[in-house]
Amino acid sequence: MTIRLYELVAADGRAFSPFVWRIKYALAHKGLGAETLPVGFTEIPKLCDGKYKTVPIIEDGGTTVCDSWAIADYLDKTYPEKPLFTSPQERAMARFFDGWFGLEVMNRIFGVCVLDIHDHARAEDQPYFRQSRESRLGGKTLEQFVEGRDARLPEVRHALRPMRAALASAPFLGGETPNYADYIALGGFIWTGAVCTVPVLAADDKLNDWLKRGFDLFGGLGNVPRYPLAA
Amino acid sequence: MTIRLYELVAADGRAFSPFVWRIKYALAHKGLGAETLPVGFTEIPKLCDGKYKTVPIIEDGGTTVCDSWAIADYLDKTYPEKPLFTSPQERAMARFFDGWFGLEVMNRIFGVCVLDIHDHARAEDQPYFRQSRESRLGGKTLEQFVEGRDARLPEVRHALRPMRAALASAPFLGGETPNYADYIALGGFIWTGAVCTVPVLAADDKLNDWLKRGFDLFGGLGNVPRYPLAA
Repeated sequence: MTIRLYELVAADGRAFSPFVWRIKYALAHKGLGAETLPVGFTEIPKLCDGKYKTVPIIEDGGTTVCDSWAIADYLDKTYPEKPLFTSPQERAMARFFDGWFGLEVMNRIFGVCVLDIHDHARAEDQPYFRQSRESRLGGKTLEQFVEGRDARLPEVRHALRPMRAALASAPFLGGETPNYADYIALGGFIWTGAVCTVPVLAADDKLNDWLKRGFDLFGGLGNVPRYPLAA
Repeated sequence: MTIRLYELVAADGRAFSPFVWRIKYALAHKGLGAETLPVGFTEIPKLCDGKYKTVPIIEDGGTTVCDSWAIADYLDKTYPEKPLFTSPQERAMARFFDGWFGLEVMNRIFGVCVLDIHDHARAEDQPYFRQSRESRLGGKTLEQFVEGRDARLPEVRHALRPMRAALASAPFLGGETPNYADYIALGGFIWTGAVCTVPVLAADDKLNDWLKRGFDLFGGLGNVPRYPLAA
């Protein structure tokens, strides 16, 4: 029975949820195939009994699992070969990484490209996206929020120093081989590349080497059309 | 043969190197005893052929190992029971954590308490400490560098958000049980408490619960005299 993965898509068909992308990498890591089903923002509440407003969601036989961490745990429990987490300790550290990456990196990139995300969403999803995100942005419009965004790019680049430090001594965040932390971060950069019309990295950023290695994994899973990430 | 651990001490005898403390925790984690030998900043170059200006340094039989990461690896290789790292992936993630904690947390605490460190060092170590640190501080004196430090405490507290996020779902950074990331961070806070005359945390910071759990580990290893960490 093939696993079915619901993935968020833009108007141009590109998959652009960072949380779906980490699961696409997780499935590839475990050698599991999946059938992908495209959904827009406003279709998600029709899945999973309306419990979730976000993807990924997988269906595996009669089992539905929502939320990327629940899916990762489900995959390791159900398909123990090629574990995503070699130990509970590694899993806990990957959770720390996820928290750091979300708070310090994704939030900053979101602030730079939130209007781009809106503009790339399907037409029928744009009003929902605008309303839900503007309510989180303290009353600012998406347009107001991205004003002067170029001046905020140095903060994004500065925030990534801990990743550069780790990658100075190993090819992947997981060490000699990629682990779930790599997939979390790669998912974030694929999301960025799918929508962000300004390059978030400098051309000489060492992270570009890691990005290339990561995109090339699993037969080039991450080599999808994108805006330049670096310039 | 008992392992000998050189540890940096203040004028009042308190061990105050964060890097030594992570090794004290690592030794306790592995159930290994050690004889500690106090040294001041200016004595360190007399050890280890002058290769290192920092501790920890251990001697184990005829083997001398300098640098905390080299020591952690040596301990896991030589004494494989109760590993510090359950897998290379966990080790890589702990290195990421170390980089993050150093760049985002320790550097900020250092900026708040660098004069306190000086004032707590042995009299014969103070000139070396002042000269070496002031040369890193862009020409400022230690006194100038800590001016207005109270206003920088919110930055320290803000920087710790990723740790709070991880500890919202588990008692330790390592998950249900502490791992090397916990020891890295506990070492940082023991160093802070040994010298820092202003409390770096707010009284209601959830990290205080984790600190108590961490200090209580291994028979209360971390329950040493300290300035209040929170207020």
